[in-house]
Amino acid sequence: MKDKLLAVAAFLRERDCFEILTHDYPDGDTLGSGFALCLVLQQMGKKARVITTSVPKDFTFLQAGIQPQDFTAQTIVSVDVADVKLLGSNREAYEGRIDLCIDHHMTNKIEAPLKCVDGNAAANCEILYKLFRLMQVDITRGVANNLYTGISTDTGCFRYTNTTAETLRIAADIIDIGCDTAYINKVMFETKTRKKLALEREVYNTMEYCCNDRCAIIAVTLATQKKVGVGDGELEGLASIPRQVEGVKIGITLREKAENDFKISVRSDGDVNAAEFCARFGGGGHAAAAGCSVKGSLEEVKAQLKAAVSEIL
Amino acid sequence: MKDKLLAVAAFLRERDCFEILTHDYPDGDTLGSGFALCLVLQQMGKKARVITTSVPKDFTFLQAGIQPQDFTAQTIVSVDVADVKLLGSNREAYEGRIDLCIDHHMTNKIEAPLKCVDGNAAANCEILYKLFRLMQVDITRGVANNLYTGISTDTGCFRYTNTTAETLRIAADIIDIGCDTAYINKVMFETKTRKKLALEREVYNTMEYCCNDRCAIIAVTLATQKKVGVGDGELEGLASIPRQVEGVKIGITLREKAENDFKISVRSDGDVNAAEFCARFGGGGHAAAAGCSVKGSLEEVKAQLKAAVSEIL
Repeated sequence: MKDKLLAVAAFLRERDCFEILTHDYPDGDTLGSGFALCLVLQQMGKKARVITTSVPKDFTFLQAGIQPQDFTAQTIVSVDVADVKLLGSNREAYEGRIDLCIDHHMTNKIEAPLKCVDGNAAANCEILYKLFRLMQVDITRGVANNLYTGISTDTGCFRYTNTTAETLRIAADIIDIGCDTAYINKVMFETKTRKKLALEREVYNTMEYCCNDRCAIIAVTLATQKKVGVGDGELEGLASIPRQVEGVKIGITLREKAENDFKISVRSDGDVNAAEFCARFGGGGHAAAAGCSVKGSLEEVKAQLKAAVSEIL
Repeated sequence: MKDKLLAVAAFLRERDCFEILTHDYPDGDTLGSGFALCLVLQQMGKKARVITTSVPKDFTFLQAGIQPQDFTAQTIVSVDVADVKLLGSNREAYEGRIDLCIDHHMTNKIEAPLKCVDGNAAANCEILYKLFRLMQVDITRGVANNLYTGISTDTGCFRYTNTTAETLRIAADIIDIGCDTAYINKVMFETKTRKKLALEREVYNTMEYCCNDRCAIIAVTLATQKKVGVGDGELEGLASIPRQVEGVKIGITLREKAENDFKISVRSDGDVNAAEFCARFGGGGHAAAAGCSVKGSLEEVKAQLKAAVSEIL
């Protein structure tokens, strides 16, 4: 990894006018990676901006300190993006143009002249922390907040199986730099809107089990979202609910993103490979957490997923 | 602290026939502290046992490797016990007999010839880790599992404000020793029985707000516990629910432990001191998490708590 990081460091120093791509339905790790890298590049006197399909309300604080800059992009970097498909509405504009890909998904399929992929990193922000240390750049409080957000959200605040001793030591170093863990943990892990509470109650009612209760499935339909009055940014965290039920090996969350078009989130307890499961539907991710998209009515999609689960359990 | 730890180390080496006291309604930190210390003392060739009012089902794995031994107690040690009142049914037998008190509650009121209290430690198990390192004892996998359980449960898996960089580094060291974080995190933070899910739905329905929605209160009555069919061991974690609601500064959980006798758990977001609040009712704890007991009907107890909240908010 060190050789790759050195190559990335040299590349960043050499180039200018960066556009940093994050994945669609952006989470803390892709946004934390994007804004941390953007802040560091701007500190280095370079021009940089983050390209994202959205910044959910809870993540807007990550942008603090970013300078809006006018420039024509010369260098395209993707962070935490495993596949061009995951660029969402930005795919068309950027497919085939990525110069540097920094990612922690084993299943990464991005084509780029320079790739830095470490499947052992719990979060992409772990890779960026190591990169910044190697580059000996000043890790400001703003950069630290971004890195901590990425690492803590991708590990469920250090409780998922991807968390390593190194993850905790990196987080400790970032805390020493002075990030605001109290604020970040409160917003990411300790705060629910009243709407979110209402949504959870609705979702609990959709829970069903299959394969001798070793698989649990929940569904968030457009009708439910409308009834409760929640938007995209308030659906985070639901995917961990079905896997939490005692005895469940694989938890599946169906989220209707458009009529008869479902985003599927799969969480596994380790015995089942979630990424392999999602690959059957053209998706990917990690062994413990992965995703895909399936079209059809709620009942059709559920039936397809259940059939696939019964084959592997 | 190092002088105190050296004194504790000398004391443990000198004495024998230990009884280690844990607090009532035992949690991961008091049991983890008790069994870790017991294992280490037995490794040292000494006789030791843990005295506890119960070992909830999820914590039975902590006892692995403990040898049942016949002996007459000569040395009494309390771990994670802030007050003799918290010994529950063991109070009568042990009050006034404690030789060594190891605790991390600032509010500690135990009278003992040797006291080692560090209010800056996120968990009592942090103090024990430092003690064991200082004593250069072999921290086995079993001891590591106990220490990790104590530290992770008292910090909400590293998301509460008591978590420090040192907490994370200690946890990293314990992971390197080889504790089973995947199992422990799954059982402590990622598993809910179906009964627990049903209980949460019931409890959500009792949520009420006061003081301009800055305080949220939930109640678990004996009737609810009976309806859902849950016992003491399945009520962990509920206390964090009301504080999680957006805008809530202080979250209060009432749990009916006997008819018209409520155990109150208070969680604060940091602006309010939960320990000071509970002290008004003869209780104590930490600034962010504290508890007390109040007698009366559900409505009477709620009214008392609301009146007290309105004075401080």
